[in-house]
Amino acid sequence: MAMTNSEAIMVPTYSRFAMLGSNPIALAMPADPYPFFFDASTSVVTRGKLEIYDKLGKPLPEGWALNAEGKGTTNAAEVLHNIVDKNGGGIMPLGGECEQTGGHKGYGYGMFCEIFCSILSIGVTSNHTHTGGKGGTCHGFLAMDPKIFGDPTQIKEHFSVFLQELRDAPKAEGATRIYTHGEKEVFAYDDRMKHGIAVNINTISEMKDLANYLGMDFEAYLGHVETSGGRQSSYD
Amino acid sequence: MAMTNSEAIMVPTYSRFAMLGSNPIALAMPADPYPFFFDASTSVVTRGKLEIYDKLGKPLPEGWALNAEGKGTTNAAEVLHNIVDKNGGGIMPLGGECEQTGGHKGYGYGMFCEIFCSILSIGVTSNHTHTGGKGGTCHGFLAMDPKIFGDPTQIKEHFSVFLQELRDAPKAEGATRIYTHGEKEVFAYDDRMKHGIAVNINTISEMKDLANYLGMDFEAYLGHVETSGGRQSSYD
Repeated sequence: MAMTNSEAIMVPTYSRFAMLGSNPIALAMPADPYPFFFDASTSVVTRGKLEIYDKLGKPLPEGWALNAEGKGTTNAAEVLHNIVDKNGGGIMPLGGECEQTGGHKGYGYGMFCEIFCSILSIGVTSNHTHTGGKGGTCHGFLAMDPKIFGDPTQIKEHFSVFLQELRDAPKAEGATRIYTHGEKEVFAYDDRMKHGIAVNINTISEMKDLANYLGMDFEAYLGHVETSGGRQSSYD
Repeated sequence: MAMTNSEAIMVPTYSRFAMLGSNPIALAMPADPYPFFFDASTSVVTRGKLEIYDKLGKPLPEGWALNAEGKGTTNAAEVLHNIVDKNGGGIMPLGGECEQTGGHKGYGYGMFCEIFCSILSIGVTSNHTHTGGKGGTCHGFLAMDPKIFGDPTQIKEHFSVFLQELRDAPKAEGATRIYTHGEKEVFAYDDRMKHGIAVNINTISEMKDLANYLGMDFEAYLGHVETSGGRQSSYD
């Protein structure tokens, strides 16, 4: 297990102020034919998702973000600006804005992460991280030896059978596939190694600015990337 | 931490079949003036919530349950029936039906619980629990000594300060209070000790049937409860 807190972006249930980070919880465990690998923010989405929508000039889906008054908004630029300026608003916890859809649970999993990161270490909580230096963010790690519980080979086999049962479960109408966590990444890795990584044109532009600032020859590098199979396209 | 799997009620993302239980994860930690106590199913709601809506004859809120085809439904009776008969359908993971609102994350936290309960123990996974006997459900427990990380008194103080900062954070428009997890229960406990426990009239009727079946004098007991401050009312 690995966890980290971050600059505050997640608004606790009934608040209008970001007090927790994206606070991801990651859990990995060996299995065949590929490992289980779950890594997800406890906020409904990460700040990076908002940045993509902002770059594309697209409105956010409902149920992701709150404005400075703590009401739902689809304006990515406004939310990102408010997070930086600590004006209020931010991203909803997993489960959304209210208790009816379990927003207090996402807030709770965010606390789970915060406890393992900044509380047990008597470190900087998400709401007190700062710009400059390392920002004060804290991390939590936990490793367990399966031998404590039984034969690791048997445990792995048992887990692999269950993961296959999940993949083989009846599909929802219109769905063709059920994924286990980490499976998409296994296939994405193969795809990216073959076809390169799609990068948004605005990100390319930001990278160019950064390269100029650092006195690096970005154009030469970009040319190299493209001729070696890189793709340059928009996010969907 | 305490976790348990259960009879399968949660439908993994893109499936139409319940493969995981309500799979709650509970985490408690000392704090002043009251402890942090988070205990929540990794499904958007528990089966018990559906039973309440069914008893009241009310339609379920959107975003809770799926029918046998894996499509959203508000029919509690149908979903409960389908879960028992393993016809397909069930309750959505925390985060809802699709990836856009993070349903795959609730499914992931459900897996987290499943790993600590039935996988490490090489026990019965939620999709293989059975009626009769103990059903095969498995539990996982984890206790950590805060002394591993630092001075327990300091850790508790640090945590208590953060919890108070959460309660003191600016409120959303229309909200009057931000809760930390377990706080509602502290106040509910005091209220119930003073005013008794509200019980739905259909539940009273079920209890009466059960008492009759067991040859117990339910009426006498109910009378006693009422005169000692018990309330009998509907759930909101």
